[in-house]
Amino acid sequence: MEEVKNKQTVLKSYVNGFPKESGMLLNASATISLKLPEGSNAVLVKNLYLSCDPYLRIQMTKAEDSYFPPFALGSPIVGLGVAKVIDSGHSNFKKGVSGLTGWEEYSIISSTDFLRKIEDTDVPLSYYTGILGIAGITAYVGFFEICAPKKGEYVFVSAAAGAVGQLVGQFAKLSGCYVVGSAGTKEKVDLLKNKYGFDEAFNYKEEQDLNATLKRYFPNGIDIYFENVGGKMLEAVLSNMRLNGRISVCGMISQYNLEQEEGVRNMFLLVTKSLRVQGFLVGDYYHMYPKYMEMIMPLIKQGKISYTEDIVEGLESAPAAFIGMFYGKNVGKQLVVVARE
Amino acid sequence: MEEVKNKQTVLKSYVNGFPKESGMLLNASATISLKLPEGSNAVLVKNLYLSCDPYLRIQMTKAEDSYFPPFALGSPIVGLGVAKVIDSGHSNFKKGVSGLTGWEEYSIISSTDFLRKIEDTDVPLSYYTGILGIAGITAYVGFFEICAPKKGEYVFVSAAAGAVGQLVGQFAKLSGCYVVGSAGTKEKVDLLKNKYGFDEAFNYKEEQDLNATLKRYFPNGIDIYFENVGGKMLEAVLSNMRLNGRISVCGMISQYNLEQEEGVRNMFLLVTKSLRVQGFLVGDYYHMYPKYMEMIMPLIKQGKISYTEDIVEGLESAPAAFIGMFYGKNVGKQLVVVARE
Repeated sequence: MEEVKNKQTVLKSYVNGFPKESGMLLNASATISLKLPEGSNAVLVKNLYLSCDPYLRIQMTKAEDSYFPPFALGSPIVGLGVAKVIDSGHSNFKKGVSGLTGWEEYSIISSTDFLRKIEDTDVPLSYYTGILGIAGITAYVGFFEICAPKKGEYVFVSAAAGAVGQLVGQFAKLSGCYVVGSAGTKEKVDLLKNKYGFDEAFNYKEEQDLNATLKRYFPNGIDIYFENVGGKMLEAVLSNMRLNGRISVCGMISQYNLEQEEGVRNMFLLVTKSLRVQGFLVGDYYHMYPKYMEMIMPLIKQGKISYTEDIVEGLESAPAAFIGMFYGKNVGKQLVVVARE
Repeated sequence: MEEVKNKQTVLKSYVNGFPKESGMLLNASATISLKLPEGSNAVLVKNLYLSCDPYLRIQMTKAEDSYFPPFALGSPIVGLGVAKVIDSGHSNFKKGVSGLTGWEEYSIISSTDFLRKIEDTDVPLSYYTGILGIAGITAYVGFFEICAPKKGEYVFVSAAAGAVGQLVGQFAKLSGCYVVGSAGTKEKVDLLKNKYGFDEAFNYKEEQDLNATLKRYFPNGIDIYFENVGGKMLEAVLSNMRLNGRISVCGMISQYNLEQEEGVRNMFLLVTKSLRVQGFLVGDYYHMYPKYMEMIMPLIKQGKISYTEDIVEGLESAPAAFIGMFYGKNVGKQLVVVARE
């Protein structure tokens, strides 16, 4: 069987602190056969778009008993992506798919549990890594299911210009809420206000005292917080929550690379303000995907929602793109193009 | 109108750190008329049992914008109690009542919103400060409503020999759960195991590493944590929670007297374990009181639940009894008898 080159981005060493480019490696010498063995029920794909998600950082550490198992050293990183089926032993997957794949040109996907057929190709295919992928369903579940927003409520979103945050803000506006977002550059703050319709936005890096900042933007307090950041931001938010507030904990990007997480020192406010803080794993909510698609597709096609992607070209750019997220370099959903078709 | 002496326990100065007896005062010179003015719709009561609740500590500090307004200096402390009606301008309150009253011999209760008529006198009247009062409904709501226990789940209760904890443990056993409690003396640990039927119990003061302790008692992890303590205990519990665990935050007695709360440094586990942490104010659940009474009364009368009270005599003993709770001196529900009838 003829084999072709299969460039890969592999994990070279486990990460301590911030991930570094030196911990990842472009392996240009791997090869692959573009035909599945007879009788295989796997799916052989050509990868098109790879999703850079902060949660991958967890799998780059060798922690015991983590819900996210550590990556194998020397193997391609495994993450979400959009791919074209080249050969398939599975009747459901014959053309376009999205789901767990490798950071490489071609992948053999044997476990198809996390694979989904792409039905609608009227939208950019890359959207299936973001607004139509994990980021979209995360924003949907975390905001609507977990926070149960009511019209007129006060909503705060951190990392608001990111893959998930930009959607949460727009969902909040569509729900008749007042929404403020935080981000780390002027460019992002402008996007929040001018493109996504946040009522207000601020650059957290320019604020000395987050507690005071939040008091300024929410003189009446916060009903709903969509948590992407953690640490000091969470502490400041807790101080500004209103009675019966809800916090949906999607991620804590400020904490992933610290030796020791920052402590949150006002947890007693949970009692005195009757707050609910709920973490969630979007995997537990995949059954809601059809319902989400039903909501989001018309919004996209009618131009009622916008989505910003930050696209870099080629597997060799993947490590820097991934690492850049922890420094807030990406503007919108970070993804890597491996091939366009 | 003839006046009688009305001994009072008053707050002398606001508290910083641990409350001290010197911050409270017995005022033996106050007087009161035992007849309400013509046309009054207040209720004049003779106080029988006063409830010592840790939350009162919050009102002994002059904090801004607290849900619990600070007490007025020089006035009797206001808390929950059981009382006998002496004179009443309110048709519903003619005999026994429970609810917010003063730490004094007689009180005029003008706001009857937090007053409840005592219907069933087949049980010790003092029970209306505990198992039939705020502690009972707190245990009920926090465990059943907030944690939604399932048979076979693993439950951990801190401050388990206290007014609320002893009930939560027994509710957990009645629900078919496996339950472990922590307390601060050997006597209490024995009570947990031998009187309330906890499967296991430990003295947290004898443990060097709470994380390891919990791992020992919960090799499979914790599904439900009933939080009374806060700080380091909460951190250790988070590390030992199972996927989809629930934490009901009732109080954080270890933190009330600290200048700065201990930080909780593993909040990201909320995401990776999909945890829900919910604080609650029992006042929001008073409507469930009849349902709770329906459940608890038969259990008490059939001897299927036991309740330990720690009773001290006289208003002059109230400050020490209250303060003692923060050192774990009380065994069971702490209350003060002002008069027995």
